[in-house]
Amino acid sequence: MTLSEAADRRASIIDGKSIGAAIKSQVAAEILRMRDTIGKQPGLAVVLVGERNDSYSFVRIKMKACDEVGIASSAVELPADCTEDQVIHVVSNLNEDSSIHGIIVQLPLPKHLDGERILNVVNPEKDVDGFHPLNMGSLAMKGREPFFIPCAAKGCIELLLRRGIEMLGKNAVVIGRSKIVGLPVSLLLQRHHATVSVIHSFTKNPQDLTREADIVITDVGVPNMIRGNWLKQGAVVIDAGTNAVKDPNRKHRLRLNGDVCFEEAVQVASAITPVPGGLGPVTISMLLSNTLDSAKRAYTFV
Amino acid sequence: MTLSEAADRRASIIDGKSIGAAIKSQVAAEILRMRDTIGKQPGLAVVLVGERNDSYSFVRIKMKACDEVGIASSAVELPADCTEDQVIHVVSNLNEDSSIHGIIVQLPLPKHLDGERILNVVNPEKDVDGFHPLNMGSLAMKGREPFFIPCAAKGCIELLLRRGIEMLGKNAVVIGRSKIVGLPVSLLLQRHHATVSVIHSFTKNPQDLTREADIVITDVGVPNMIRGNWLKQGAVVIDAGTNAVKDPNRKHRLRLNGDVCFEEAVQVASAITPVPGGLGPVTISMLLSNTLDSAKRAYTFV
Repeated sequence: MTLSEAADRRASIIDGKSIGAAIKSQVAAEILRMRDTIGKQPGLAVVLVGERNDSYSFVRIKMKACDEVGIASSAVELPADCTEDQVIHVVSNLNEDSSIHGIIVQLPLPKHLDGERILNVVNPEKDVDGFHPLNMGSLAMKGREPFFIPCAAKGCIELLLRRGIEMLGKNAVVIGRSKIVGLPVSLLLQRHHATVSVIHSFTKNPQDLTREADIVITDVGVPNMIRGNWLKQGAVVIDAGTNAVKDPNRKHRLRLNGDVCFEEAVQVASAITPVPGGLGPVTISMLLSNTLDSAKRAYTFV
Repeated sequence: MTLSEAADRRASIIDGKSIGAAIKSQVAAEILRMRDTIGKQPGLAVVLVGERNDSYSFVRIKMKACDEVGIASSAVELPADCTEDQVIHVVSNLNEDSSIHGIIVQLPLPKHLDGERILNVVNPEKDVDGFHPLNMGSLAMKGREPFFIPCAAKGCIELLLRRGIEMLGKNAVVIGRSKIVGLPVSLLLQRHHATVSVIHSFTKNPQDLTREADIVITDVGVPNMIRGNWLKQGAVVIDAGTNAVKDPNRKHRLRLNGDVCFEEAVQVASAITPVPGGLGPVTISMLLSNTLDSAKRAYTFV
């Protein structure tokens, strides 16, 4: 094999930044058209309980993205020691507010609160995170359509679609089964008629199934867990892991690392998302797109 | 190999009839206790639209089973040409009726009716079929509990549990993805920490994945599709197929055949359900058990 052949065999990098930016500009254009036509704009509200630095920073990223495309965003902050009923009261008010089309309850919630009970209260028609069981059930069931699909999972499929990657009849392996990625992406892949296997911490020899997969989507939270020799030659890899790893050479002595050992996988896969710059930017653009869709539905604006 | 060794290697038959009967007698005993203690009994209502012979016969089987255990059952019949609103009106009345703890809308409905819309109206707390998307979503999501799990899927797991078959860490293949068996059983197997692959009509070489499976659950509707050489030695096979096959030697010139080629599979599997007499009787007992659970919840009877 010559050096150039070896280089040819490196996976193409799925550039989430540019795909995310493209979606954002489409969303922005639609919002402009909405404002011009009916004088309305989409509204997103984030409910933030307690003072977690990571949550603050996630909320800031979301609100900044809203600003950029013309979504009116607001955050309702509650103290860490508030009661469940107080949170539910806030969510109920947002349900009633006709200027709000998307409601996010920023997770994780303080441990004394019953998150499932609170998420149940979010109006499924404003549930832009797609975490309401009614939306998850409608996603699972043939012939039904959820109001919203969880953003990161929708982002994975968007990346595959925009790269023209066929799902029908392909073997897909999903590693991890969270409501954020693993569960909804396994349901979405099935909607696209892939043959889906879901791998998790109890799976024996996870590499055996993974090695048969044309499409691998990982959401584990263990840096570099998926090695090059887990992958079939030519597989497409979407890495939803965002693991902070110590790195003395970086600012804050941390860097982001995916679940996939990128440098090995890039030699085997045909296409792969980097971390950062892969799924992340697309996920946030899906949130904007979900909020726009919700406003369009509320105003019957087509 | 001696003849007796060959015989030893035949799968043990999972006798759904006796397991179903055992569950039924447990349900009957609980209902007796309920009547004795609080003077109440569970109530099941079936909504039947149009005059389909197969539906009539399914409804008759369900109502007879209700009688046997002490569930008060009733059927509301509507003409084939009734409107969607008429069906919804009937369902809404049953939702309000405190003597009714389970509501079944017998499927299939006439084509001019929107089944999804009608099933949405069934109160999820009376949805003993488990087909409401809120129940399916709660089944899919970790940390949530549905009010009801679809009876046939619950029956498959009940058979595995009663036979002491370990699911945790086992490879399971589900063939078919209907809301009746495939979808909910794949979610249930995941709850029991099996590694689940879902196979369907677009899957290429379905036998490859199936041959790796410790547990195979089929719900395809194609008689004898799963051959002996699809199975791993020692696999456990649950056959949810009930296919009417022409047979001149039988009454009505028909016999029931599963999706699995039983005579071949029985040589390879370690345990297998026959058709008929496998999943069927357990499914009906799950319906009775769901209805009892609902009445217990309604009357807070423990």
